[in-house]
Amino acid sequence: MENNAKPVVLALSGHDPSGAAGIQADIEALAGAGCHCVSVLTSLTAQNTREFRSMEPQPPARFGEQLDLLTDDIRVDACKIGLIGSSQLAGIIAAYLRDAQYPVVLDPVLASGTGADLTAPGLVSCMTEQLLPLTTVITPNLEEAVALTGYDETTKALHALLDLGCHTALITSDGNGRDEVVNTWMDNNREIHSYHRKKLPGIYHGSGCTLSAHLAGRLARGDSVRTAVENAQDYTWQALKNAVRIGKSQLHPGRFCR
Amino acid sequence: MENNAKPVVLALSGHDPSGAAGIQADIEALAGAGCHCVSVLTSLTAQNTREFRSMEPQPPARFGEQLDLLTDDIRVDACKIGLIGSSQLAGIIAAYLRDAQYPVVLDPVLASGTGADLTAPGLVSCMTEQLLPLTTVITPNLEEAVALTGYDETTKALHALLDLGCHTALITSDGNGRDEVVNTWMDNNREIHSYHRKKLPGIYHGSGCTLSAHLAGRLARGDSVRTAVENAQDYTWQALKNAVRIGKSQLHPGRFCR
Repeated sequence: MENNAKPVVLALSGHDPSGAAGIQADIEALAGAGCHCVSVLTSLTAQNTREFRSMEPQPPARFGEQLDLLTDDIRVDACKIGLIGSSQLAGIIAAYLRDAQYPVVLDPVLASGTGADLTAPGLVSCMTEQLLPLTTVITPNLEEAVALTGYDETTKALHALLDLGCHTALITSDGNGRDEVVNTWMDNNREIHSYHRKKLPGIYHGSGCTLSAHLAGRLARGDSVRTAVENAQDYTWQALKNAVRIGKSQLHPGRFCR
Repeated sequence: MENNAKPVVLALSGHDPSGAAGIQADIEALAGAGCHCVSVLTSLTAQNTREFRSMEPQPPARFGEQLDLLTDDIRVDACKIGLIGSSQLAGIIAAYLRDAQYPVVLDPVLASGTGADLTAPGLVSCMTEQLLPLTTVITPNLEEAVALTGYDETTKALHALLDLGCHTALITSDGNGRDEVVNTWMDNNREIHSYHRKKLPGIYHGSGCTLSAHLAGRLARGDSVRTAVENAQDYTWQALKNAVRIGKSQLHPGRFCR
């Protein structure tokens, strides 16, 4: 009557009421990787598929209490970090992960899908100094990579991310007006792998959350980093291809469960 | 590239970091009904599969802002209410649902799965006076039915729930030490339907959330109330039968997605 445990991924993410991004994206994309999601919410947000209105980070002490109680009970196989919301929370997360023996995926969310600035005072420096050295794969888009490294050229930004201590880095692109989307992954030997895909016609909410969560799930299952990076891109592309119109503006990725 | 919208269920629930109960249960059980979940979180909690330590309800103004922005963008086909956390939030929910043209499922969570008291000052009276008259199906366990009505006998409690304005009421039982679990539904003609199932051996976290969310999903799809009540019990029993050991104590329901 009792099944074996599934791999468990700890998501440290925000909540998006529309369910397109944030913790719901994590839960669904992790189910699609055959994993169970556990989570501590960093921030609650007021937003929809058209606009981002406000973000309320959790008080650090409450976040810490929830994290302690959770991880005291449940063994974690990988961690995915999304929206953080404050430098205090970034510091707690870094302190918690310092002794972790499992892979960490960091999606350095610095803007909402609808364009709102989600940085907080001291957050970028806390990320680069404390979180990046603990990260197995960081998954910024080019704008976020620029914010973290100062470089707006993909290869230079990738080297800079690894210089900051990331094990590997995947910079995603929305195609920049072209017919093709190119994501670029630098492995831990500083070899570059480019992934080309046909650009899909819609505008999507939560594609970055989907990618990073599924990637963490693949790592939790024991995939090599390269396989996980590749599978997560395939999964995300399929989810975008199967997008559903739920709100009036950006589409919801159609995430698969199993 | 763009698929037709799925039925959408608005979940007004708490967050459980373990993912067994609360909003994650809703998301998964709604996926299992072919629906998309959107949500506004009532409360964040510090808990695990062994103990419940604290609950932090959202400030009413933030909850209202998130709810307004969400429902301004996304059309809702049904609503599921779980943990509320404060009488102020119950009042906002009642005011919002007063004009709703869709079914409402109320799971009157007054204790955690691990036994902690989750009532708040004025919450029970706010529920009975304002929320019950808006409710298509209320899904208390017997202890919750007693707290709401004062009756500890199932049939009397069912009548009292309908007297308070619920359209129909399903009182669930954990079997009370017997080999069989009996859930009892009173329809809107005050006819009683009893559902007998073999008691499963485990102790589960989130079975009530699973039942009420899936039920709301079935109603959103257009099932009759009776069919939805019966399908939701079948789904929940299967989820408990497929429970997974994730934490050290209570088991996680194995919810299916499609």
